[in-house]
Amino acid sequence: MKERFSLAQLAQELGAELRLAPGSDPDREILGLNTLQDAGAEQLAFLASPNYRRFLKTTGAGAVLVAEEFVDECPVAALCVADPYLAFARATALFDTTPEAPAGIHPAAVVHPEAEIGAGASVGPGAVVEAHAKLEPGAIVGANCFVGESSLIGAGARLYAGVVVHHGCSVGARSIIHSQTVIGADGFGFAPNKGDWVKIHQLGGVRIGEDVEIGANTCVDRGALGDTIIGRGVKIDNLVQIAHNVKIGDYTAIAGSAVIAGSAVIGKHCLLGGCSRINGHITIADGCQVTGNTFVTKSIPHTGNYSGALSFADSATWRRNAVRFGQLDKMARRLKEMEKQLQALSSKDEGGG
Amino acid sequence: MKERFSLAQLAQELGAELRLAPGSDPDREILGLNTLQDAGAEQLAFLASPNYRRFLKTTGAGAVLVAEEFVDECPVAALCVADPYLAFARATALFDTTPEAPAGIHPAAVVHPEAEIGAGASVGPGAVVEAHAKLEPGAIVGANCFVGESSLIGAGARLYAGVVVHHGCSVGARSIIHSQTVIGADGFGFAPNKGDWVKIHQLGGVRIGEDVEIGANTCVDRGALGDTIIGRGVKIDNLVQIAHNVKIGDYTAIAGSAVIAGSAVIGKHCLLGGCSRINGHITIADGCQVTGNTFVTKSIPHTGNYSGALSFADSATWRRNAVRFGQLDKMARRLKEMEKQLQALSSKDEGGG
Amino acid sequence: MKERFSLAQLAQELGAELRLAPGSDPDREILGLNTLQDAGAEQLAFLASPNYRRFLKTTGAGAVLVAEEFVDECPVAALCVADPYLAFARATALFDTTPEAPAGIHPAAVVHPEAEIGAGASVGPGAVVEAHAKLEPGAIVGANCFVGESSLIGAGARLYAGVVVHHGCSVGARSIIHSQTVIGADGFGFAPNKGDWVKIHQLGGVRIGEDVEIGANTCVDRGALGDTIIGRGVKIDNLVQIAHNVKIGDYTAIAGSAVIAGSAVIGKHCLLGGCSRINGHITIADGCQVTGNTFVTKSIPHTGNYSGALSFADSATWRRNAVRFGQLDKMARRLKEMEKQLQALSSKDEGGG
Repeated sequence: MKERFSLAQLAQELGAELRLAPGSDPDREILGLNTLQDAGAEQLAFLASPNYRRFLKTTGAGAVLVAEEFVDECPVAALCVADPYLAFARATALFDTTPEAPAGIHPAAVVHPEAEIGAGASVGPGAVVEAHAKLEPGAIVGANCFVGESSLIGAGARLYAGVVVHHGCSVGARSIIHSQTVIGADGFGFAPNKGDWVKIHQLGGVRIGEDVEIGANTCVDRGALGDTIIGRGVKIDNLVQIAHNVKIGDYTAIAGSAVIAGSAVIGKHCLLGGCSRINGHITIADGCQVTGNTFVTKSIPHTGNYSGALSFADSATWRRNAVRFGQLDKMARRLKEMEKQLQALSSKDEGGG
Repeated sequence: MKERFSLAQLAQELGAELRLAPGSDPDREILGLNTLQDAGAEQLAFLASPNYRRFLKTTGAGAVLVAEEFVDECPVAALCVADPYLAFARATALFDTTPEAPAGIHPAAVVHPEAEIGAGASVGPGAVVEAHAKLEPGAIVGANCFVGESSLIGAGARLYAGVVVHHGCSVGARSIIHSQTVIGADGFGFAPNKGDWVKIHQLGGVRIGEDVEIGANTCVDRGALGDTIIGRGVKIDNLVQIAHNVKIGDYTAIAGSAVIAGSAVIGKHCLLGGCSRINGHITIADGCQVTGNTFVTKSIPHTGNYSGALSFADSATWRRNAVRFGQLDKMARRLKEMEKQLQALSSKDEGGG
Repeated sequence: MKERFSLAQLAQELGAELRLAPGSDPDREILGLNTLQDAGAEQLAFLASPNYRRFLKTTGAGAVLVAEEFVDECPVAALCVADPYLAFARATALFDTTPEAPAGIHPAAVVHPEAEIGAGASVGPGAVVEAHAKLEPGAIVGANCFVGESSLIGAGARLYAGVVVHHGCSVGARSIIHSQTVIGADGFGFAPNKGDWVKIHQLGGVRIGEDVEIGANTCVDRGALGDTIIGRGVKIDNLVQIAHNVKIGDYTAIAGSAVIAGSAVIGKHCLLGGCSRINGHITIADGCQVTGNTFVTKSIPHTGNYSGALSFADSATWRRNAVRFGQLDKMARRLKEMEKQLQALSSKDEGGG
């Protein structure tokens, strides 16, 4: 990773138009990124939301990624772009210091002689790659990872330290899986038998598309029959549970600690908030947004925003209302009863009036 | 694992009665399992729920596991059994392709000389087995697992890659623990001391019964004093938190992302839904079913079904109702006030009538 | 760890006053701790809550940690202290049997030549320590852990088996991190771009203070810009999600499966209950207590107790009330309408009276 860029270079890298302020210099070097409030003269800041506009005038940044309409307010060099947040995202790639993984098999890795390791692929110390597993060119298997029999890690994909990909699973090209995540553990399936349980062996696998990112300590279980499928460009956060035979449509994003129960089918371009929970065997339409902590109990056939969480209160207030929740049905019946009485009184009153 | 079975062999393996359809052949070979809808001629399907009966007539399966009452509707060879779902579960074992673990200690494992490794036990590459740990015959400790001092892995039990079992814990015979699960980390206990915390060292262990299965990325903490106990035949899904000194009764099943707080006692044969949360220091009777996302705040002395989750709505509708939740106590008071007034009016009305 | 203490030694270790009962002996040896109910003659029990006072008179313990006011009721040797629970916590340290980690680098560890390993530090088998990482004196990196480039593990800190600390992170002195926890994985940040997502590389790190304890399978993500910060003396349980750029104030405790979304700022000395969920970009004042399962949707500017969870009921009762929840707004409108009608009736009635 290059570590410093002149303003002119940055403009080129980011497809931005450089608008110098009085005294600014296209050769000024930028070493990193920061917020408008905190950036120093060697850092690039960005104005992506009008909420932060007030910080623009006094920013100490060396330059700012900014939309055309705010360029005039920018006291330092402006890198003018159509979408400053997108340009910021692209800029983060320039300054990323995540260590690169050296190509080749570390001597402390354990790679089965029948595994296939592509050109430029990296297998870290302590990693185990089983028979017939295949790492495509440039794939990275981090320290202490496990790649099971006949599994595939796509070109340029990266498993960070401690990831487990069990047998018969595939991870698409350029996908990223964070530490301790488990792909392809058995789904949770048992048949009852006189008070005991008989295991339903999980015969499917997991297929993860290209350009997917999956957070740390997340689980994607293998299918019972047929595969669990994560579409292209899907983004999944930490500590998420994806049960067997779930299908996640392309480009859907799922925030932390969400839970998707077995055989649920999530559409494309959905956003599932943190801690959202999706029941098994239901279908969610493309483009749905589910806010955090929502429990989706049945299929959602139409695109839209869906919610299901209560907010909080000071404990005393909360308790008073929560107790009433337990009386709701009775309250509703009393309400109905009163309506009848009131109706009767009104009639009488009118009749008598 | 054998990879193909004739219909006659399958009938014998599954205790089924083979009823050939016109043109079907007892020597036909079956290579796998699938649903009625998707199965091909070399696959076995099953009809376990009347919901799928409509798929029976047109199934392309080579044979179907089916109850007596539906045999006549089966267009292909029927394997007639009393409980098709149970027979299906048993059939999955026949076609499971999970790689077997080779007996012996992998050269890249680190086994303490004072550990005891039983006949046919397997220790995978990168696995660490500490002093006085004992693997009973046929126990499997997967790649990069850790088995702490004086812990016991029962006969035929299997720890998948990356499992940690800390010191002084035991895992019963034939139990299965999935990747990255941690058995016997310290429970969460601290005594307050003038704004600081003093650690309560966790002196107990974890005892896991026979035929237990525990999912991936789950935690079962060691006891503070005395052990955390998981009964025989218990099934626990992924990302579940079992705090210190919890006791789970035999054959109870706990779905994904559930949370059992410290010292809770769960009965036998209970079903706890996904994301259910059980308060600490409470007791749940045998045979209880707790639906998903339910927060069990106090003991449940009687067998039954218990619930506590709200469903969702489109965000606008949800918001309208959620706001009213914060007014519930006031609504209840207004309701009561109106009842009084109405009573007064009615009395007057009657008095005046 | 010493394994047995005479009563006189224990009194000295715990700063307690030994009050012998008739027949008790200051040289009696104590081998462990237990509850009043279960303790035997070689165990020390404690009375920390009046709820357990009834067990004092019949305890079989060899001695009891007890406050002055209950000494007279103690049938066996009393170790009289101001705060028995605190003394109990201190006593647990005396009897802890957690294996100590041998100083030095295990031959099966992989330590980069440019890593710095302090005096008495321990690196377990299969652990990987990358370039420029620094273990201060007495730091312990357990089996199969990963310590990334330029990260720091403070003096006497302990990472249990399987912990991952990514590059550029620091763990304070004497802090404890339990198995499979991931420090410094990428935060969840993406900019939308025509239906696709562009990764926001996470350029910050994680800074963990001194005397912190973090449970198993927990995630603390690295910051996007700037660091995620865990204050001194913070205690975090298992399966907790701490998103990027969160700041946790000193001595705050966070119970299991809690979720703190990005850039949230939690005050000092807060208590967050199990499964509590804190929205992103909000601030919680010092000293707040948030009860379990509460969803904190907005900033809390004042110290206090806050709640947000509903309790449960038998499923039939629950369903009746839950259905009414979906009618709440309508109920509120009907209530208001009736109040108007009643008002009108009353006026008329009075007018006509």
